[in-house]
Order: sequence, then C-alpha cells, then structure tokens
Amino acid sequence: MTDDKQLCDIGFIGLGVMGKNLTLNLADNGYRIACFDLDQTKVDGILAQDAAERGDKAARIVGCRSYTELLSRLKAPHLIIVSVPAGEPVDHVCNHLIDAGIGADDIVVDTGNSLWTDSVAREQHFKGKFIFFSTAVSGGEVGARFGPSLMPSGDPYAWTRIKPVWEAIAAKVDPATGKPLPAKGPGQPVTEGEPCATYIGPVGAGHYVKMVHNGIEYADMQLICEAYQVMRQGLGMAPQDIAATFRTWNQGVLNSYLIEISAEVLEKQDDETGEPLVDMIMDKAGQKGTGLWTAVSALQVGSPAQTIAQAVFARSISSLKKERVHAATMLKGPEPVELSSDEKQQAVNNLQDALYCSKICAYAQGFQLMDMASKEHGWKLDFAEIAKIWRAGCIIRAVFLQSITQAYASNDELANLLLDPFFASQIQAFQRNWRQAVADATLMGIPCAAMSSALNYYDSYRSETLPANLLQGQRDYFGAHTYERVDQPEGRKFHIEWSQPGQPQVQIKK
Amino acid sequence: MTDDKQLCDIGFIGLGVMGKNLTLNLADNGYRIACFDLDQTKVDGILAQDAAERGDKAARIVGCRSYTELLSRLKAPHLIIVSVPAGEPVDHVCNHLIDAGIGADDIVVDTGNSLWTDSVAREQHFKGKFIFFSTAVSGGEVGARFGPSLMPSGDPYAWTRIKPVWEAIAAKVDPATGKPLPAKGPGQPVTEGEPCATYIGPVGAGHYVKMVHNGIEYADMQLICEAYQVMRQGLGMAPQDIAATFRTWNQGVLNSYLIEISAEVLEKQDDETGEPLVDMIMDKAGQKGTGLWTAVSALQVGSPAQTIAQAVFARSISSLKKERVHAATMLKGPEPVELSSDEKQQAVNNLQDALYCSKICAYAQGFQLMDMASKEHGWKLDFAEIAKIWRAGCIIRAVFLQSITQAYASNDELANLLLDPFFASQIQAFQRNWRQAVADATLMGIPCAAMSSALNYYDSYRSETLPANLLQGQRDYFGAHTYERVDQPEGRKFHIEWSQPGQPQVQIKK
Repeated sequence: MTDDKQLCDIGFIGLGVMGKNLTLNLADNGYRIACFDLDQTKVDGILAQDAAERGDKAARIVGCRSYTELLSRLKAPHLIIVSVPAGEPVDHVCNHLIDAGIGADDIVVDTGNSLWTDSVAREQHFKGKFIFFSTAVSGGEVGARFGPSLMPSGDPYAWTRIKPVWEAIAAKVDPATGKPLPAKGPGQPVTEGEPCATYIGPVGAGHYVKMVHNGIEYADMQLICEAYQVMRQGLGMAPQDIAATFRTWNQGVLNSYLIEISAEVLEKQDDETGEPLVDMIMDKAGQKGTGLWTAVSALQVGSPAQTIAQAVFARSISSLKKERVHAATMLKGPEPVELSSDEKQQAVNNLQDALYCSKICAYAQGFQLMDMASKEHGWKLDFAEIAKIWRAGCIIRAVFLQSITQAYASNDELANLLLDPFFASQIQAFQRNWRQAVADATLMGIPCAAMSSALNYYDSYRSETLPANLLQGQRDYFGAHTYERVDQPEGRKFHIEWSQPGQPQVQIKK
Repeated sequence: MTDDKQLCDIGFIGLGVMGKNLTLNLADNGYRIACFDLDQTKVDGILAQDAAERGDKAARIVGCRSYTELLSRLKAPHLIIVSVPAGEPVDHVCNHLIDAGIGADDIVVDTGNSLWTDSVAREQHFKGKFIFFSTAVSGGEVGARFGPSLMPSGDPYAWTRIKPVWEAIAAKVDPATGKPLPAKGPGQPVTEGEPCATYIGPVGAGHYVKMVHNGIEYADMQLICEAYQVMRQGLGMAPQDIAATFRTWNQGVLNSYLIEISAEVLEKQDDETGEPLVDMIMDKAGQKGTGLWTAVSALQVGSPAQTIAQAVFARSISSLKKERVHAATMLKGPEPVELSSDEKQQAVNNLQDALYCSKICAYAQGFQLMDMASKEHGWKLDFAEIAKIWRAGCIIRAVFLQSITQAYASNDELANLLLDPFFASQIQAFQRNWRQAVADATLMGIPCAAMSSALNYYDSYRSETLPANLLQGQRDYFGAHTYERVDQPEGRKFHIEWSQPGQPQVQIKK
C-alpha cells in the first residue's frame, strides 16, 4: 500500500482495458496515481497488480471510492485523465467532477475514442468550470501498457503541464532508424528515443487525426486481406504459405505491424479442429465507427478518400454473410484458370507491388483529408510531426512512415504524398505490376475493391483532363446548373438551352 | 385576370424555376392557384405567362402580396404547396403561415430538396398547428412543367386530399410499354397513362427515396462519363463518334434519358470556337449535396453503396483541377498501346456491356440501401411502386426501370436486384466483356473507378467467403475485438491471446 499522506500527481478515472494499462504505464514512469472506477473490483484489481509488480512499499497507485475522494488525493491544480466509453459517459464523469468541486484551473484529459466534434463542444461547454483537454490514444492494450502513440489537442497552457507526462509514457522511436524501440517490460519504461506524442492543435484536432489514422488502418487491413484472398482463392495457396509470403514481404518496404500480425494470424492452428484457425473464423467484419466517421468526413470535406470508404463498405458487405452464401449459388463468375508455377510466382510478386502502391495511395488519401480538414478548421496541422508519432505505438506503425516523415519534413507545403519525389518514383517503378495484379483479379472474379480504388485514385489524380466536362454538360442540360469554360477565367458561369437548337450560350451573372 | 371572388383550390408559395413550372402545370390541369413569392416580379411574371397562354378570361392563377392574402383566397381546409430552397426558408414560410392564421386541418406540402430528417422534425414540430406533408420532386424544369416524378410522404389523411392533384400533374407512363408518354405542350395536360406519383410512406420516406434516386443518378452519370473517357482517351474517338455510339446504345437495353442527353451534349458545337462544346467545358464537377447525403447514409446504415460513393469522390477529385494539371507533369501512366480497328470495335462493345452491368449494380446498391433504411425506420417501402414512378418524369428514367418494376412486382421479398432471375442472367451474359473493359482501362491507365467498384460489388456480393476472417483475426489480435466461428452458432464470441503461444481460445460471455 502506498503512503496515504502523500498527495498524488495524477487522477485516473476509468480502469477498463485501456485505462488500466495507461495507469500502469504512468506508474512505471514514476507518477503517483489516484484512481477511480464505478466498478470497485477494477480498482482492487489494479492495486493488486501494482503491489505485485512493484512490492507493497513501492506501489504508486491509490484506490478511491468516489470522485470527491479522488480530488482530495491530488496535488493542486489537479490533472485528471479519463478513459471511459465515448459519448455520454465522458459528460457524466465531467459533471460528477464539477459536483465534487473541481476548479477552473484543473485539467481533465479525455483519452477515449470520442468523436472530434464532441471534444470541441465539451471544451466550450465546460469553460470556466475546468480545462477540458483531449488526447487520442492509439496502440490497443499493449500500446497503452508499454508505449502508445498519443495525439493531444486543446488549450496550449494545459499542454505545457501534460507534455512531460505524455512524452514519458509514449512509445519511443530510434531517431537513427525511425524504427520503434522495443518495450522492456513492467517497471522498465523506455526512457531514450523520440516520444510518439506531439501537440496536434486546438481541441478536436487530435481526435480528428486519430480518426483518420483509424481510417487509414481500415484501408491498410482491407488491402492486406485482398492480397490474402487473391493468393488463397486465385492462386490456391494455403494459409501457412501466405503467412510465409507475408513474412518475406515484411523484410522490405511493406515492413509493418499489420503485415507481421497477419502472418501470425495465418500461422495459428485451431486447437479444436487442427485446422488453420483463420479457416474457422467467421468472415463477417465488425467496426467501431471511426473508419465510417473518416469516410463520412471525407465526403463532407470533399476529399477523395475512396480507398478508406471502400474498406468500410467491404466490412458492410462481409456482414451480409447469409445473403452472400445464397448469392454464391446463383451468381457465377469466370471459370478458374490454371496457372504455371512461374505464373503464380509472378502473380505473387505483382501482389506485393500492388499492396505497396495501394498503401501509398491510402496514406496519400488520409493525409490529403487531414490537409483539407486542417484548412477548413484552421488547425495548421504539421504532417511531418504526425507521421513521426505514428512510427511507433500505433496500429499502422511501419517503416514506411519514416519516408512520409521525410517527405513532409523536406516540403511542408506538399499538396499530396504522391507528389513527393520518393513516392512518385516508387509508384513509377512498381505500377506495372500493380496494374497487372488488379487486372488479373478483375478477370479472375476475385474482389479487390480497395486495391482498384487506390489505382483509380492514382489515375484520376494524375489526369490533367477528367470526363467531368461531359458531366457538367449533363448537369447544365437537365438542371441549368451552369458550367465554366476552359478558355474563360475561373468562376465565370455559362449556360445554354441544350434542347432548343439555335439558342445562344449565355454567361450567367453572379 | 381571373374572377376575384372565386376561391382558389391551392395556394403556392415560392415561384423559382421549379415553383413556377409546377404552378403552371397545376393550372394546365384545371386547378385555380393563389400564389405568393417574396419577389413580386416573380408573381407578376407568372400572371403574365398564365394570361398569355390561356387568355385573360381563362387564366387560373391569382397573385397575392402576403401570406394573409394568400390564405384569404383559398378554399378551406387550405392546401398550400411550398417550393423554396431547402433548410431555413422552409421553416420561415411555415412560421409565417402560422402568423397568418393557418389552421390545424390545413396542409402544407414541402416540395423542395429537403434533407429527409428535416422533414421528420418538421412534421413533429408543427403538429397541432397544421399538417406538414412532404413531396420530393424529380425532373428538373421541364419535368415540373409537363410532368415530374413525385415522391409524396407523410400523414395518410393528407395524402387522400393531395393524391388527385399529384396524379394529375405527374408524368405519365404507357402501361403497355412502360415508356414515358410524351408531353403535349402548355395547356394540354397528358391525362391518360399511369401517373408517376405514389404514396411512399411516413414523412421523410419520400425525401429519402428521392435522395437515393439522386445517388443513383450520380452513379449513372459517372458511369457514362467513364465510358466516354475510355473512348476519348483510350480509343482516340472524337466527340461526334462517341455521340453516335451513345445513340446506337440508346436503341437497346441502355435506352435512357441520360444516354440521350449525353449524345446531345457531345454533338453540340461551340459557337465561339467552332470546336465541340464539350471540349470547352471545364472538367470540374459541382454537386448540390444529395449524392453526398446518399453515400453518407449508406455508410451509416451499413449498406455497401460503393459505386454511388465513388461517383461522389469522382466529383471531388475533378474539382482539384490545378493539382491535377500539376500532377500530370510528374506522375506517369503506362505507354499508350496502338489498337487495330477490330480491337477498337471490340473495346467499344465491351464498354457497352460494362456500362450496362455496372448500371445494374448501381441500381442494386440504391435499392439495397432503401431496403436497409426502410427496415431501420419501419417505412415498408414498396420497391415495385418506386421503380414504377421512376419510369418517367425523373432524370434516371430508362427502359431498364420497367425490368426493375417487374423484378419487384414478381417478388416483393427480393433481397437484392442481382438475385432477380432476369438481372442475374443479364450479368451472366455480359460479365466477360465487363471484366475485359475494366481490366483494359486499368492497364491503359484510364480511371474507371465507378465501373470497377460496381464489378467489385458484384464479385463481393457473390462471394460465399470473403477475407473478413483474416480481418477479424487482425482485430482480435490488436484490439481483443473477438470473432465468431464458422462451426458455432451466430453471436458466440471468441478471443485468443495471439501473441502469447499456448494460450487457449476462450469463449467470451456476453
């Protein structure tokens, strides 16, 4: 048991999977924590774990039975971190803290998966009562325990107080290689390296950036799944062979956490049946909303994040399992084609390049979306910094993010990741195989919606001329929506009575 | 001037392009209308047109200078139709009508492009003051004047009063062929045939269905544009040759208003330069929100309307003209391939089939979305009736909609249009060329995002197994999100500690 008279540095509310592990991580880094959860067994559980790991005398966590007790245990001004489900529970905790006597100079940090607009509304709503600050956390259970990627945003004064705490517990990157420094285990925080925590901007910006991180994660996962399906169904490879292929890919430019765990998932054997476990898992994907929010935001901002949206739709269609099983009996695809082993090897090589190029496009879409949102909301996001803190701790961590960091560090005005000389040359080098992989899947009848949407994004973005001229003609024809002319200044609108021959084209006055 | 003492049948508020033409259409059908607009010149304009078309003595429209005067000119209980911009203006009009003394038994019909959730909120908000009813209108200026497609929804009692009015002014279909009956001109309403007006359901349902109509319209237009771009850039065809191709296609299964006007747009010569006008139109597409709303709703409902979303993203990317012009100098595609004239002809044939199959998928997505939304909101939409009223009057009118009508008429439980025997056999017959068209565009570097998303929709929907099993494995690995097993009842969740070898798989209690 910790010394009851010594005041704690930080209050922590909510000891679910993320909250418990963040609290243990804070304790590892020397902070004394007063914690509270509505479920007293969770409080007891973390006290037991703290005592077991550090010994009774060195334990750094104090359990509280009420919001009032929590506040009484903290140094002033109070710093309170909250990890409860997004939505109403966050407001509940904030209101209880007000009732318990929290002061205007105290800080409450929401670390849940909140919708970014809720964070904006909360900062405004609680103004004068306390300082509401938000920090989005990526990395899941293990990240929270040994080093997450942290995206804090809100009041800059509050940030000066939170900064040392977040930098201490964040994942760390080796500055020489850009690679994650490995965790050392309980009680042994990683203190060297670059921390994956940077101030993102005004409140809401951090959760927006985390939302886009998750959107990219959706796309990345779906792209890997499509490569798997082509190998499985098109090339007839067994799960363990696909795992071996992923392990090979993980040695090169595709090196990433998601490729690594995909190999591990494919290698796992089911204890019950002896079959590969992946074959026993139902192919219905769930979602928790952040990918969907990203796609909705992209539509609203007018940013073409089509591969991210496609990944969300792929989950929707996967969930229609019964319909698909029925449809499979009625709707036929092409006859299977027998490939030679050389052709199969080439197809695998093509897939590797397709995955890499598609991944570049998915990340380009994510950064483009953040750029457009940043301009709309005046956030002034720093993309080199954002790429930097995604190099470790979070789910999309990858060698690749070091190249993105470098792209934005060398040109902070970069309009699109595709225009960075390194990425432009990468796609130039690999696009032939990418195209072939998409064309082959198309002809084989194996869905590759995310890969082909990525390729279409590339081909649309590099098209000086798109067929939107015909589209504007159609819109002016049936709806008098007007069009601009290529030989007239931007903003001048023209209209013609298409269905009445001989009517002159007229310029519409604004 | 009409007889001042005779009370009018209908009040009409808002005389913009749609309002003016709907009013003239009502007058053509024998109704006496009292009209009002904040802009008095619009009131004067429609009175002059009514007098010119019908002669002073036969004129059927009365101009009013206030909401109060409008109410005083109407038979009780009042029926008032509103055509003002969506959003606040609708509420303004409603509140002015309350101030002017509208009664609880009076009906106000909103015909604007309102967001469907606003209609739901308004019915509730104005309850007891008057009956708020909504009717979505498709068909643009010409449709409003000579026969629109009408999607009314709201209070069933109000519908009994509105029904004869809407059925009179709606577009008409020849029941024998399913084709639109042509308009006869001012003062000569089409009185025979099946009217394109049917009661959709509770308030909001009509605007929802109209929203999805527009989403389908976005997809249809984008698909046509992609076929155009492949012919233009890939096959080197001139606009007039593409127009001729569209005219040929318009003789067959692709027969539709949008194909017809696309040909006309491509044939138009620019008076200023002598060039095809389409080449002088800036390739930046605008939007008014309904396509975007459809895509957002699809994401939220969990319906894979990916081709519709893709069409919205295509407009977004088209608007980045300056970036594209710059990107075109840096990002290269494949080298052009020289095709023989036989190969070109085959490519054109492939495109025709690709357009047809993609269109089937886009419509399937739209109906699937309406189905999922209908179940979520308890609307009980009748899809045969909806397809029926889209056969004439609206922008997506097409021969094709007769087949959709038949599909749902013969099976009102149809889970997906793709499962209808006719459409299933059509895709079976044409899918080979469809795949080839998409593969060719992919290899040529010409974007065909909507066409390939449609094909991916087809291939995903007919896949008994999708790679979401790997995805669920990934999600359980990093986030303990759990998975279901193929050999266990639905709803049983399992979890395994992937990174700790030897840990057993456990079933999670709900």
